[in-house]
Amino acid sequence: MDRILRIDMGAEGGPKTTITDLGEYAGLGGRAMTSAIVAKEVPPLCHPLGAENKLVIAPGLLSGTIAAMSGRLSIGCKSPLTGGIKESNAGGQPAQVLARLGYAAIVLEGKPADDTLYKIVINKDGVSIAADNSLKMKPNYDLVEKMKQEFGEKICCISIGPAGEMKMNVASIACTDMELRPTRHCGRGGVGAVMGSKGVKVIVLDDSGMTVRAPKNPDAFKDANRRFVEGLMKHPVTGQGLPAYGTNVLTNILSEAGGYPTFNFKQGSFDGASKISGETQAELEKKRGANPTHGCHRGCVIRCSGIYHDKDGKYLTKQPEYETVWSHGGNCGIDDLDAIAMLDFLDDNIGVDTIEMGATIGVAMEAGIARFGDAEAAIRLVKEVGQGTPLGRILGGGAAITGKVFGVERVPVVKGQAMPAYDPRAVKGIGVTYATSPMGADHTAGYAVTANILKVGGYVDPLKSEGQITLSRDLQIATAAVDSTGMCIFIAFAVLDQPETFQALLDLLNACYGLNLTGDGVVELGKKVLSMEREFNARAGFTKDHDRLPRFFSQEKLAPHQVTFDVKDEDLDKVFNW
Amino acid sequence: MDRILRIDMGAEGGPKTTITDLGEYAGLGGRAMTSAIVAKEVPPLCHPLGAENKLVIAPGLLSGTIAAMSGRLSIGCKSPLTGGIKESNAGGQPAQVLARLGYAAIVLEGKPADDTLYKIVINKDGVSIAADNSLKMKPNYDLVEKMKQEFGEKICCISIGPAGEMKMNVASIACTDMELRPTRHCGRGGVGAVMGSKGVKVIVLDDSGMTVRAPKNPDAFKDANRRFVEGLMKHPVTGQGLPAYGTNVLTNILSEAGGYPTFNFKQGSFDGASKISGETQAELEKKRGANPTHGCHRGCVIRCSGIYHDKDGKYLTKQPEYETVWSHGGNCGIDDLDAIAMLDFLDDNIGVDTIEMGATIGVAMEAGIARFGDAEAAIRLVKEVGQGTPLGRILGGGAAITGKVFGVERVPVVKGQAMPAYDPRAVKGIGVTYATSPMGADHTAGYAVTANILKVGGYVDPLKSEGQITLSRDLQIATAAVDSTGMCIFIAFAVLDQPETFQALLDLLNACYGLNLTGDGVVELGKKVLSMEREFNARAGFTKDHDRLPRFFSQEKLAPHQVTFDVKDEDLDKVFNW
Repeated sequence: MDRILRIDMGAEGGPKTTITDLGEYAGLGGRAMTSAIVAKEVPPLCHPLGAENKLVIAPGLLSGTIAAMSGRLSIGCKSPLTGGIKESNAGGQPAQVLARLGYAAIVLEGKPADDTLYKIVINKDGVSIAADNSLKMKPNYDLVEKMKQEFGEKICCISIGPAGEMKMNVASIACTDMELRPTRHCGRGGVGAVMGSKGVKVIVLDDSGMTVRAPKNPDAFKDANRRFVEGLMKHPVTGQGLPAYGTNVLTNILSEAGGYPTFNFKQGSFDGASKISGETQAELEKKRGANPTHGCHRGCVIRCSGIYHDKDGKYLTKQPEYETVWSHGGNCGIDDLDAIAMLDFLDDNIGVDTIEMGATIGVAMEAGIARFGDAEAAIRLVKEVGQGTPLGRILGGGAAITGKVFGVERVPVVKGQAMPAYDPRAVKGIGVTYATSPMGADHTAGYAVTANILKVGGYVDPLKSEGQITLSRDLQIATAAVDSTGMCIFIAFAVLDQPETFQALLDLLNACYGLNLTGDGVVELGKKVLSMEREFNARAGFTKDHDRLPRFFSQEKLAPHQVTFDVKDEDLDKVFNW
Repeated sequence: MDRILRIDMGAEGGPKTTITDLGEYAGLGGRAMTSAIVAKEVPPLCHPLGAENKLVIAPGLLSGTIAAMSGRLSIGCKSPLTGGIKESNAGGQPAQVLARLGYAAIVLEGKPADDTLYKIVINKDGVSIAADNSLKMKPNYDLVEKMKQEFGEKICCISIGPAGEMKMNVASIACTDMELRPTRHCGRGGVGAVMGSKGVKVIVLDDSGMTVRAPKNPDAFKDANRRFVEGLMKHPVTGQGLPAYGTNVLTNILSEAGGYPTFNFKQGSFDGASKISGETQAELEKKRGANPTHGCHRGCVIRCSGIYHDKDGKYLTKQPEYETVWSHGGNCGIDDLDAIAMLDFLDDNIGVDTIEMGATIGVAMEAGIARFGDAEAAIRLVKEVGQGTPLGRILGGGAAITGKVFGVERVPVVKGQAMPAYDPRAVKGIGVTYATSPMGADHTAGYAVTANILKVGGYVDPLKSEGQITLSRDLQIATAAVDSTGMCIFIAFAVLDQPETFQALLDLLNACYGLNLTGDGVVELGKKVLSMEREFNARAGFTKDHDRLPRFFSQEKLAPHQVTFDVKDEDLDKVFNW
């Protein structure tokens, strides 16, 4: 993993590849790599869909090794949704495979002169790029099927659906899972639109003939991995809750806590929660012969993903995640798991971010385009996105655009990006993260739900403003570092609660690279990543006035706790004082 | 003109009026009044369509007197299009009438709980407000006709069409002209959407029984006005060019100068220019029994407006302005005056900004929604805006939104507002104004076309970057002051070239208010207004990085001069150094 592959999609005569060593980017991986390249090489005021933007695809520092949970792939660029820097990461196979192929990053640069669509194939023999307009407007499932026929079953794919080709703000980039299905998405920020603007439909990876990455100190690495896995298995969240019910275990918890945004952030709990909860979902999956406990990539031991079958017992989609069940479910007043699963399938197939898509439909329902609770209408609307009808184009612009187009006031976005499944009024720590993260509203950027709701890593009362700044700051720093390792963020549950599991993570990095990293070093890495990102955003025109929630959160009380978001602006401005 | 009328549209039990004296706003008028109230009373981070925004309607300092040209009405708010402060002004009758009724400002505040539509009637007896849902979705012409039947022929109206009710970013506020037609629009920045969000369809004004405003020093005022009118009549632009051909006299001039944005800012001159020029237009109008020389308000002596008849010699619309003939004409490759006149009528009737609307259609043509040059398609698209179809909603969002929805890179906007009819690469002074005005891209904010093209107020080579900063700075300051007087900005041609005409303007203000204002005082007023506006924008999150043109203007050369916009960023940052 000592090379960077650059592909100039705008070169005269067609795409041109250059392979270099890591140079100044040595020692970086995942989000640290994508943010460093974007911050250094992309003009902050460029058009996100123009030749000056770059799409950076990077496995994490530990990806490609035998380390458990190291399969996250980071994709970065200037975001067409937020106008700021973006890193979006996903599970699935590509991070491991790309790392084993030896690439620390793929950088897509420039812009083709016409609308030719390309596929890129990377294997042990090198890189080949071919125009293939037969792929135009293929949904992700069909596309992957075609690639399988063409290149065999040993591949994995990084691809866009029709939404990415149409350069929609909601467009995601799909990564195939262990079953070679396009179910794991770098969803947020419209990264799929940037891939579409580069004219790249799919990157096919095949690591046949390559071996697992060798750490500097193999014995110490193996030992650290053993302790790391033990720690994950021991913790109740990563060892029990997530494997049994997946992320959707949160539906009942959040609705009971009064922090479950319902009817486009009108209230904090949902009457239909139990009908779409992780418990109900897992039971249904088992009944239909599907599987609620499943890993999304090689080396996953938490196994929070799953498989969802339709009423006839046939594969419909992967087990919808909590955020998806919320965005298409409670947020739109929908309590029908089969409808939500269908929406999840459509999202994956068209290639859109399920969070942004569901939040957008919530705003459209607020505008009167459909009735809250109307699952059939929601399905029809997502299909329109895939078809690129005028209404589909509006919704494909995301929640902020949809709000503007229909003149809606209640639009739950920060920096143009829709909020995920936690109401910031009743989970104030996550509100601080939404407001201040350089990514726009993003739960994974500093997942304060841990201490606010799950009592992991301590407890901070979710309904009070006290303590939320420190909580969010620490989590944002830790997350920026973890996102650079290739580790799934869910390791945080165990790492936050168990010092020995955190030590095992450090030992993995040290044994892999021959380092002497301590906890302080991880904090420094996290701060460095956040600083690069904030500095890019500042040059793109962002100020502290963009680190704010929409004002209705501080003005409208949320039932059942009758709370507003009352963290003071001057405190929000202290999140990055370190 | 010593009172402020405030109407709380969100008061319990229905709209509630309060009339106060001027208080801290004494001595302000027009843009100085609207910007002062918005800057002081509107939270910069509020939602533009929410209860916290205010719509301020203010006649100028000299409106309502006998002073020639004093009929501009300023309307201000936080703009839903730009997200910053907005002042948009128009001619027509309302400024004179409102001033004679004694109001220095109407401030619409709050937000109705439901979607009831209101009409407000103001006459010598006071203010009455009535719900009238029969007016819903009425286009402006029908609406005014209904008001005429209800309240007689002595009224004038300030109203919104369907676009304002739908809270579209392109929505304007119409002011009726001397023939009681809704032809003069506060177009820019989506002010109509804010009026729509307040639930106000129309403000009917009737100054029957009121008298002309009396200046402090009547004889000096009369004398100053005489000298002022003499100066206007003497200058070739205000005394000859504008009366004969209207603003559209500029089409041939700009196209010949290579600064006429054609095919969505792809080239700088238009082959069809002579077919849609002011000269051709005036000839056609005369042939059809219409009138190319006509004033838009009482007291206008320049008379640059006119009347446009259709092929059958029947009234179709007012004489389309240069900016409209450009936006719907050359910018979209359309060279058919009758089609452009129809588009002008539709814009006025639906209630949209002709500049934003035409620029938006240009972007839609760039996206392939219609062919450049297809006038029928353009008419169909504008009709869709009026109907609020999904495609109409997209276009109603303006050029920036349309660009985002369709993934277009070439989108000529600054701060979200579309550029008018001068390419900043070939008229660099206006480029500086576009980039730096607190209003977003706006030609009237600092009309450097004077010295760049018309050689009025000196000459600064339009193709070179030298001298443009000073030119734009001086004009922006002067304009902010003139926009506060109620004077039509076209007086600037004479005032810039003829010191005695500038003195006459000062004498008008001094005689009216008993002041001793000098040229320096006017400059101070202009700086004060700009400073308030920029300070509001800074609190709304704007930085110097928003004072930039889209990057394609500095990267793509404009034919025929093969120029880019090369004024340096650090120089743009000096515009407001005074």
